[in-house]
Amino acid sequence: MAARVALRGSAILRTIRPAACSLPRESRRQFSFSAANMSSFYSWEPEGPTIKTQIPGPKAKAQIAELDEVFDTRSLNMLTDYEKSSGNYIADPDGNVLLDVYAQIASIPIGYNNPVLRKAAQGDEMINGLINRPALGNFPPNDWANVLKTGILKVAPKGLNQVFTAMAGSDANETAYKAAFMWRRQHERGGHHVEFTEAEMASAMRNELPAGSSELSIMSFKTAFHGRLFGSLSTTRSKPIHKLDIPAFDWPQATFPLLKYPLDQHAEENAAAEAASLKEVEDIILNYRVPPCAVVVEPIQSEGGDNHASPAFFQGLRALTRKHNVLLIVDEVQTGVGATGKFWAHEHWNLQDPPDMVTFSKKAQTAGYYFGSPELRPNKPYRQFNTWMGDPARALLFRAIVGEIERLDLVNNTARVGDYLYGKLEALAQKYPGQFENLRGKGMGTFIAFDSPRRDEFLARAKGFGVNIGGSGQSAVRLRPMLIFEEKHADILLAALEKIVTSW
Amino acid sequence: MAARVALRGSAILRTIRPAACSLPRESRRQFSFSAANMSSFYSWEPEGPTIKTQIPGPKAKAQIAELDEVFDTRSLNMLTDYEKSSGNYIADPDGNVLLDVYAQIASIPIGYNNPVLRKAAQGDEMINGLINRPALGNFPPNDWANVLKTGILKVAPKGLNQVFTAMAGSDANETAYKAAFMWRRQHERGGHHVEFTEAEMASAMRNELPAGSSELSIMSFKTAFHGRLFGSLSTTRSKPIHKLDIPAFDWPQATFPLLKYPLDQHAEENAAAEAASLKEVEDIILNYRVPPCAVVVEPIQSEGGDNHASPAFFQGLRALTRKHNVLLIVDEVQTGVGATGKFWAHEHWNLQDPPDMVTFSKKAQTAGYYFGSPELRPNKPYRQFNTWMGDPARALLFRAIVGEIERLDLVNNTARVGDYLYGKLEALAQKYPGQFENLRGKGMGTFIAFDSPRRDEFLARAKGFGVNIGGSGQSAVRLRPMLIFEEKHADILLAALEKIVTSW
Repeated sequence: MAARVALRGSAILRTIRPAACSLPRESRRQFSFSAANMSSFYSWEPEGPTIKTQIPGPKAKAQIAELDEVFDTRSLNMLTDYEKSSGNYIADPDGNVLLDVYAQIASIPIGYNNPVLRKAAQGDEMINGLINRPALGNFPPNDWANVLKTGILKVAPKGLNQVFTAMAGSDANETAYKAAFMWRRQHERGGHHVEFTEAEMASAMRNELPAGSSELSIMSFKTAFHGRLFGSLSTTRSKPIHKLDIPAFDWPQATFPLLKYPLDQHAEENAAAEAASLKEVEDIILNYRVPPCAVVVEPIQSEGGDNHASPAFFQGLRALTRKHNVLLIVDEVQTGVGATGKFWAHEHWNLQDPPDMVTFSKKAQTAGYYFGSPELRPNKPYRQFNTWMGDPARALLFRAIVGEIERLDLVNNTARVGDYLYGKLEALAQKYPGQFENLRGKGMGTFIAFDSPRRDEFLARAKGFGVNIGGSGQSAVRLRPMLIFEEKHADILLAALEKIVTSW
Repeated sequence: MAARVALRGSAILRTIRPAACSLPRESRRQFSFSAANMSSFYSWEPEGPTIKTQIPGPKAKAQIAELDEVFDTRSLNMLTDYEKSSGNYIADPDGNVLLDVYAQIASIPIGYNNPVLRKAAQGDEMINGLINRPALGNFPPNDWANVLKTGILKVAPKGLNQVFTAMAGSDANETAYKAAFMWRRQHERGGHHVEFTEAEMASAMRNELPAGSSELSIMSFKTAFHGRLFGSLSTTRSKPIHKLDIPAFDWPQATFPLLKYPLDQHAEENAAAEAASLKEVEDIILNYRVPPCAVVVEPIQSEGGDNHASPAFFQGLRALTRKHNVLLIVDEVQTGVGATGKFWAHEHWNLQDPPDMVTFSKKAQTAGYYFGSPELRPNKPYRQFNTWMGDPARALLFRAIVGEIERLDLVNNTARVGDYLYGKLEALAQKYPGQFENLRGKGMGTFIAFDSPRRDEFLARAKGFGVNIGGSGQSAVRLRPMLIFEEKHADILLAALEKIVTSW
């Protein structure tokens, strides 16, 4: 089936390198049934990858050299022709078209050049938002409540009905941290109504205690990623290259329970690892020299290598933080907006007591933090403020994305396709021992990863087989398809994965 | 003239409250000549303010109450109807239309609903940039070099030919700070080629010395404003409300020379204040317990109350930082993009040796930092990186803004109108002693401010007289018109200012 798809694709896209997309006979048999039963959400995308040149090809190389004169290109993965990209497929200037399961570091929700988003982009509201950029805290548009309620807040996590809007994941987290510090210090002072003292105001101007520095911290977990600005980077613990030489706060880290996969085969030792982690969290809350006012955690540690923990662990974390009057901030920047088969990954935990704040960005195309308690509004205006406080144009785009997710039931689609993909990956892992290690993400939509013994080479080779894939952590291959990823795309991906491990 | 303008405006906008816009006979005489000689850049804006209700009016009040359920409105200044705003005029839901010399906290460059920006917003490139948001560091668009060179880099400050793109002023400054730390530590290690040690990498993961914390700092000035995230806030020294309870780094602040105005009448003591400040800077560089690797400074301290210093001061600061191998970061977030009568305010200094980095945002509608030295690219990829690294849609908007600034010669326009406005303000200050104190910004385009003994009331009353004005610092009224502000708008503003001080 995938081969046939590729051939149809070649009719549209002119040429295809056989090595990239012809599949072993077995794969064809294996994949034909379910793919044939699926219909596309959108008809505008090609039916398979096209590989015309090495990547980067000659055109890309010349353009990269030109770009490098003015813009650091050393982290460049693939120069992209966005005009020619469509749906699940990313194109480059040399005519290569790849199935994209990296999706701009997990941030494209419903496909390149989605016609519904195009229509939203052409609308009067969007043009208005683009060319009349407001300072949202001072001069909000008179329809801002409506834009929020029909978009960002329409999908607010249960129990959280307020939002502070931001620009990207880092400042979404940092503004949430700021809210946490202000909340805790207000409590310590005796409530919202207590005025600041002269000494507090003077010390604030000098970055000194009691109010211009802090004896409070944000606790994060080892191998976590929460952003790269100074406060968020102090909670990021993913890789040295993210942190080297940048001043950081003396904030504590607890061990994230590094579970063994498959989870159901290691239930006992995993539960022990989680219990040990929770014990460490409590110890830090009680004893760390700079006690935490909040704990920040990702539902799945994404940049850190796709590390999962159980609902019981997160329930325990919620109980512990509640017990000690510490806020729980759930960082859904990468996990949010449907990829795990729930709109928010923390819905998998079935919490009765919701997180205090949930941060979002990436697939939302805008950013911010949700909260519910009125106490999390700082006691005075202008404490949480900046010029733009987000971008209405991007908020309107999120609204259009939410509409499309609902119309096409894309969260449930992702849950279903994720199960399909996971099952096939289990079979591949069995067939090629040692090549797809620690497969993880069962029941978590398409938010799936595995370890490869030759990860970097794995990712590089994937392009030659028509697929764009990302890595994370030390050895993880992480799959981050869009929400419009279907069984037929899974088949193409699976065939390419098999090609990779049989080609070396 | 202004009265006639207002009457014409009333024909378009249906009604006008006489108290707001009828002017004293003298004002009419005084302003008629120059205004009559001016032609509008754009014909789409109204010809004067319209005041129909108290602000907020009944519609705004109802909508603010609705918004407040989900979004903190305590810093709300005026609920805005952006569809009905145009050119220099901002509208509200009750039909009030005000001359806007605050311009979204100095961030609207060429007017609301500018037809040229509307056209740019409707173009294929913009739609592509909006709906296919790239991770710019990994998957830059193949025309990204061109977009940069014809936009952001077309107006790069002299000597700085590279850019790192960001989202807003805070992260523009913070990424510049990060570049400074990495640059300095590379020097200390012996160069770009020296690899990190195991101890450095391990300490980075623990937020500890030698490489996970820092014995280096960023020096800023008292009364400075550089943003509100954790690193930028550590350099912000404007008001306690910006800083209270938020952890800050132990970074030093030098006294900004608080000059006496008018500058030319206090040359000697101002020079002494600047010399003392430079002496303090040098002392901090040499002796502060956490020595600075960079000094960050605004050409005019804007949030801090519009504090100016002379070209000689900034030349001295450049010489000092160069002498001690400390980077000079010029924060042009508020001063940049034409408002001072130069594209970048630091052009007023005539430096032979350019700043090391210049940060921008606000009127650029996008953000980032410029730099020139190849040494300011970190020695490894992924040290300076994040998912989006800016927004191509906003970069395209800046390109359109730059095109319009050039086509209409708006920087020179601002210089000329600024001189006109400043001259008239001098006359007003003489006529109403004590009401327009410390007038400042002579020769600095429309970047003009003065102190009012009843500042907050001054700003509140301004709305009733048809003008939207902002404050800063303790007592400053800051004028931040757009670059399309003409003599005729200055006349309307001046008449309103006179109304305010004669009305109490």
